[in-house]
Amino acid sequence: MKAIIQRVMQASVTVDGEVINSIGKGLCVLVGITRKDKAGEMDYLAKKIVNIRLWDDEVNGKKWDKSVKDLGYEILCISQFTLALEMKGNKPDFHDAMNPEYSEPFYNDFLDLMRSMYKPEKVKGGVFGGYMQIHIQNDGPITIPLDTPSSLQDPNFLLKQERKQEAARKRDQRSKNNSESKNSDKKSSTVTSQEPPSEIQETSDSLKNVSLSQEET
Amino acid sequence: MKAIIQRVMQASVTVDGEVINSIGKGLCVLVGITRKDKAGEMDYLAKKIVNIRLWDDEVNGKKWDKSVKDLGYEILCISQFTLALEMKGNKPDFHDAMNPEYSEPFYNDFLDLMRSMYKPEKVKGGVFGGYMQIHIQNDGPITIPLDTPSSLQDPNFLLKQERKQEAARKRDQRSKNNSESKNSDKKSSTVTSQEPPSEIQETSDSLKNVSLSQEET
Repeated sequence: MKAIIQRVMQASVTVDGEVINSIGKGLCVLVGITRKDKAGEMDYLAKKIVNIRLWDDEVNGKKWDKSVKDLGYEILCISQFTLALEMKGNKPDFHDAMNPEYSEPFYNDFLDLMRSMYKPEKVKGGVFGGYMQIHIQNDGPITIPLDTPSSLQDPNFLLKQERKQEAARKRDQRSKNNSESKNSDKKSSTVTSQEPPSEIQETSDSLKNVSLSQEET
Repeated sequence: MKAIIQRVMQASVTVDGEVINSIGKGLCVLVGITRKDKAGEMDYLAKKIVNIRLWDDEVNGKKWDKSVKDLGYEILCISQFTLALEMKGNKPDFHDAMNPEYSEPFYNDFLDLMRSMYKPEKVKGGVFGGYMQIHIQNDGPITIPLDTPSSLQDPNFLLKQERKQEAARKRDQRSKNNSESKNSDKKSSTVTSQEPPSEIQETSDSLKNVSLSQEET
């Protein structure tokens, strides 16, 4: 995935002369999805956007200290296939962009993932694949190009991550089992706490679907 | 160098509430200059911006066919040091950006170079290093991130380019000598034609200065 993040005073999306979404202070993010992208890329980029520190701390004057999340600002995230480009002389070529059939659900899942990491009402989108006018008031200007690292596509890296996650799951399970055996009279509440919040559960299900659908390509 | 090129219906730069420059249809270019950049990078990127084909041919419907130059549109080019970033966790770090002392003349030369490749009045800038609001109406949206290739910094590549240029110069000289010996009665006009147009001469002089000043860093 490739993102162009612009720090804005305001931004809006207009289709056929009608404003369909707008934000005040925050981030206008143009996001490009490539053929190789999977759940790891989505997760990496969503975290970075929500947490990247592009504002100063107004109290102590510390530079590059506050994120959109810290300040309660908004995110307008627009799908932008042209970011996955290769120049052929003076003509851009976009064969590396993910097929719209797969990139549309991927984009929607990406918005949902950012909403689950922040607040649903703070993250707005555009019209997937539509012709839009994006009004951007770039504040500074401050513009951050952010690509997901290629390490996310390295099988060894992924294997390591999986092993780490597996180890963490086992650790969790052991500590849970310990607490269960200590609190065997509180069984029902323990079972409930094993369920992740429904929002996160939904997101991780849809991430699985995206990974599957991409493998079919 | 790193550029973010946005195809726009209009764009403007505001400082302290006052619009200091604006364009209609064309390209809003945010440009980042890194410590390694020299005249080769400047030349490569200026050519790409002036000639990149981001509009369709309205007559025959051919996609990605016309450049800003083909259509007589405008360029608003703003200096943007944040493009030369490295993420340290969630905090951007800009140590790779060229020192302002050198990047300011570099940026001004870059604007002049695009003017010399197109038309002076069609290429506008911002305030170097100042706090600005950039109003961008991204049309599409169409956003193109463009980095200069690392091959431009490869000594072997540069040596090859120099040899090519040297060979071309010798060829030119030979053909000129031939035509001089044939037209020895038209001496004065031949001498004049050896001088490049003053605009190009100035640009190549300032390019030399930039290369020199960078070598001092």
